Amino acid sequence: MSEIDIAQKIFDEMREKTADPPGVTRKSFGDGENIAHGLVGDVARNLNLEIAHDYAGNQYMTLPGTDRDAPSIMIGSHMDSVPHGGNYDGAAGVIMGMAALHRLCGDGWTPAQDITVMAIRAEELVWFPTPYAGSRMAFGLLPSGDYDELKRSDTGRSLADHINDLGFDADALKAGKAYLDGAKIRCYIEPHIEQGPALFEAGLPVAIVTGIRGNLRYRFCRVDGTYSHAGAVPRAFRHDAVFAAVEFARVLEEHWNQRDADGVDFVCTMGEFHTNPTHHAMTKISGELSFTMDIRSLDNDVLLETDAYLREQAERISQERGVTIDLGDFTNAKPGIMDPDLRAILQDQVEKLDIPAMNLSSGAGHDCATFANEGVPTAMIFIRNDKGSHNADETMEIEDFAEATRLLVAFLKELG
Amino acid sequence: MSEIDIAQKIFDEMREKTADPPGVTRKSFGDGENIAHGLVGDVARNLNLEIAHDYAGNQYMTLPGTDRDAPSIMIGSHMDSVPHGGNYDGAAGVIMGMAALHRLCGDGWTPAQDITVMAIRAEELVWFPTPYAGSRMAFGLLPSGDYDELKRSDTGRSLADHINDLGFDADALKAGKAYLDGAKIRCYIEPHIEQGPALFEAGLPVAIVTGIRGNLRYRFCRVDGTYSHAGAVPRAFRHDAVFAAVEFARVLEEHWNQRDADGVDFVCTMGEFHTNPTHHAMTKISGELSFTMDIRSLDNDVLLETDAYLREQAERISQERGVTIDLGDFTNAKPGIMDPDLRAILQDQVEKLDIPAMNLSSGAGHDCATFANEGVPTAMIFIRNDKGSHNADETMEIEDFAEATRLLVAFLKELG
Repeated sequence: MSEIDIAQKIFDEMREKTADPPGVTRKSFGDGENIAHGLVGDVARNLNLEIAHDYAGNQYMTLPGTDRDAPSIMIGSHMDSVPHGGNYDGAAGVIMGMAALHRLCGDGWTPAQDITVMAIRAEELVWFPTPYAGSRMAFGLLPSGDYDELKRSDTGRSLADHINDLGFDADALKAGKAYLDGAKIRCYIEPHIEQGPALFEAGLPVAIVTGIRGNLRYRFCRVDGTYSHAGAVPRAFRHDAVFAAVEFARVLEEHWNQRDADGVDFVCTMGEFHTNPTHHAMTKISGELSFTMDIRSLDNDVLLETDAYLREQAERISQERGVTIDLGDFTNAKPGIMDPDLRAILQDQVEKLDIPAMNLSSGAGHDCATFANEGVPTAMIFIRNDKGSHNADETMEIEDFAEATRLLVAFLKELG
Repeated sequence: MSEIDIAQKIFDEMREKTADPPGVTRKSFGDGENIAHGLVGDVARNLNLEIAHDYAGNQYMTLPGTDRDAPSIMIGSHMDSVPHGGNYDGAAGVIMGMAALHRLCGDGWTPAQDITVMAIRAEELVWFPTPYAGSRMAFGLLPSGDYDELKRSDTGRSLADHINDLGFDADALKAGKAYLDGAKIRCYIEPHIEQGPALFEAGLPVAIVTGIRGNLRYRFCRVDGTYSHAGAVPRAFRHDAVFAAVEFARVLEEHWNQRDADGVDFVCTMGEFHTNPTHHAMTKISGELSFTMDIRSLDNDVLLETDAYLREQAERISQERGVTIDLGDFTNAKPGIMDPDLRAILQDQVEKLDIPAMNLSSGAGHDCATFANEGVPTAMIFIRNDKGSHNADETMEIEDFAEATRLLVAFLKELG
């Protein structure tokens, strides 16, 4: 069997065993995630790879290199999914790593240093509300308190309980024990399906990722005005939360226009934007409106400048309209910088192998941001995918997966 | 007892007997409304006025004039309230009519023609969802089908059933029988508390109403875009319902700015404005947003031109952003024009009596719009009221009521 046949077999078996129509469900630390870890573990056992787990249950499958002490090459992604999600988001990267090792073993090729495929747990925020939980636990980066405070959204039980249930070691993690050390990793590469339509629209199978956008997230923005009669109150006495929020939203969009005109990487989304259904009415001026903001850029300075600008504008609009616009706190996930040397090697290989490819920034976050922030040189390969991710319809063609695998194998051989 | 003492007594008794903390509840065709009708009926009986009811249970209390065949002068308002509403919205106008008749009787003054105080039923839309049900039934204007189709919001029973329950005659109404004839009414005057803060802010007890704003109401406006990933989808592929709705809302507000700059009477409200709580999320571009519009003006042409402009803009924004903005149908309540001669008489009287007063348009609808649209010359007097209407906190001072009553009595005597 070719490495692509092996991969196809894992995809099929995983889809069948974690089915939850429509789509699949692989909860962090749940049965579906365990099944996926088991399937790639089986491949590793067949290849006689070294298998290990860290305190959090992340799985490491290692093809030993000539120099066991040299910093290793890592390939990884996560194996959990959103509820009723697609089969490829996350898992495709791990399976591509296994396909590459299968090919290297078949070729009888021994690397200069270890090559480890890492199957990461708990990446999907829908289960535990903290970014990159699995990879951060591998580095001992999750704050101690989080293990008891973070509850899985479906069970309400703590992260620590879920870790211990599977026989892993929450106490070691709480004590800050790290399994990985950035200094001992030569590089980390994460293959992943593209979550947007850029490759599909461009008609290309593969992209080399330029960077992972960081984000500012505001969950609890509010505009407070005054409820009053839609007809009887003259304009001067209105404190309309809707028109105030609308002006603020236009300011944000015009800021985006300016960033685009300046060629600065920037996207923003107000995914929730709503008056209060308990109190709003067609014939009532609304006294409140709640909204969220998700603002992303490859440049964290751009994000922080945007926050300052928005707060200034919120203050201005509040004063001019006699309302209160409160943006509340934000969380800031820093951008993940992709290593220029690794990107250059990938670029060389796509040219040598004649693989049609483009450069693309990643709008979504990925575990490789954890590695990048630990000082590990990182790279990402995107695989074409129609219909977006985080839904049952995500579509990756095995031919595109094969092209990306060909690139990954050549990349690993080039690294030596 | 003075006419103001009588009025105070009715207000107190009515508040006590229809109390529903906080505030009062007088449902259309309900106990509270009946109690209010009974209280003003008692005054009419004490004054030996003629008392009659029409097919819908509106009550007419008439001081006979010298010429019984001459077109009558009518004074009226409604006696129902919103749930947990204030004591004055509507009822103050009827009670002021009774206070005026009490005063005229006390003065031994006989008018040239009949003067009738009309206690109107079913004005508050919250009970039966059609405007001015009571006054329109008096003129036989409500469509036949409405009697069975309109259900009271709390009981779910039809308007016809509620009319018949009280011993009135839904069959006559369904057959289109009218009790009132516009040609036989010399004029209609409606005193009412102001529902906005203009008199309170201006420090004046009384206003002469210039007109009743008509409105366009859009209950079911929708923007349909495409749900997608907040980070991964490039701007060119986004069909963001929120930013499209926001641009549309800004267009409406800028249109308002222009109307204000042109000195054209205009107000607008988007009371409901919301993404779909079942599907929206901070990290998802929203694929839908629903909103309402309530647009009011004293000039119906302004309203209809605004509709045409908004539909044109909705089409433009839809095309530019790859979304669909559907404004849906509107209802159009035409503006009620106040009679210039009656307004001039009121103006003369406030000057003669030295009553501090201003001119004011009415943003809210009132039964006098029914009379105006039937060709009856109409006028309205507003009484100062703090804290808005349709809530338990509405506040009318009896001193202001007394000033307005003084104006009404003088106005009636002037008419002769």
